[in-house]
Amino acid sequence: MSQNSVLSQEECWDLLKGQEFGRLAYILGERIQLVPVNYAVNGQTLVFRTAQGSKLAGVMSNAAVVFEIDQINDDAETAQSVVLHGVADVLPPDAEGMVEQLGLRPWLDSVKPTLVLITPDEITGRRYELARPWKHMVRPEGEGAQ
Amino acid sequence: MSQNSVLSQEECWDLLKGQEFGRLAYILGERIQLVPVNYAVNGQTLVFRTAQGSKLAGVMSNAAVVFEIDQINDDAETAQSVVLHGVADVLPPDAEGMVEQLGLRPWLDSVKPTLVLITPDEITGRRYELARPWKHMVRPEGEGAQ
Repeated sequence: MSQNSVLSQEECWDLLKGQEFGRLAYILGERIQLVPVNYAVNGQTLVFRTAQGSKLAGVMSNAAVVFEIDQINDDAETAQSVVLHGVADVLPPDAEGMVEQLGLRPWLDSVKPTLVLITPDEITGRRYELARPWKHMVRPEGEGAQ
Repeated sequence: MSQNSVLSQEECWDLLKGQEFGRLAYILGERIQLVPVNYAVNGQTLVFRTAQGSKLAGVMSNAAVVFEIDQINDDAETAQSVVLHGVADVLPPDAEGMVEQLGLRPWLDSVKPTLVLITPDEITGRRYELARPWKHMVRPEGEGAQ
């Protein structure tokens, strides 16, 4: 994938606010873990919910995490990604009130009582050309070769 | 996000084969990195191209990587993710022939000469309900509240 341009911090936050599904990488023991998470933006931080489990154990033992979202644009020719390096903190139960106004509503169908806050120390966003040089080999029928 | 069912290994590979865009987590120095990559499936391995840079430096210094793809289904109610833990190897230049039959064609518009192979030691796939309990608050106009 070729890397074409760098997004501004504002563009990064706009993308983060516009989505609710990203991927979290963290360390558990000596091993990297990478999992999808539902999140919400809370000011200049991200919030997600988790149950007891490896995600919670991971961020409690090693707070340095990376979070990523991406988006393939409607033209299918370009994509954008935002990568956020930060520190994860488990929020106290009384933080529930704080996030009540966010899109991150309680998960009624699963037990994910713990709120985790990610405070970024670096956010980078990039726009890519989705170079697919083999595309000319898979032209739709009826379309002539160039 | 609630986690509803586990995908079979066959379902995982079908998803991997059906996509070309995923995210790679690796360690560089002491830090986790998480980047989008274009990839192709080569037998029971993944292949991607990279230029000299942090991705290459990372996988050369610490070969343990994690790769993830996901897909929100057309119903927008369910999603699937595949997470692959594995070992990255930089392929010799004469491996070009091997990947010629893959979808991973040379990137004509950028210089990404190095082929990296990821050999999985664990593949897990999951299907999720995208629980969005706040959805009832944002009903389309004209649709009554329940």
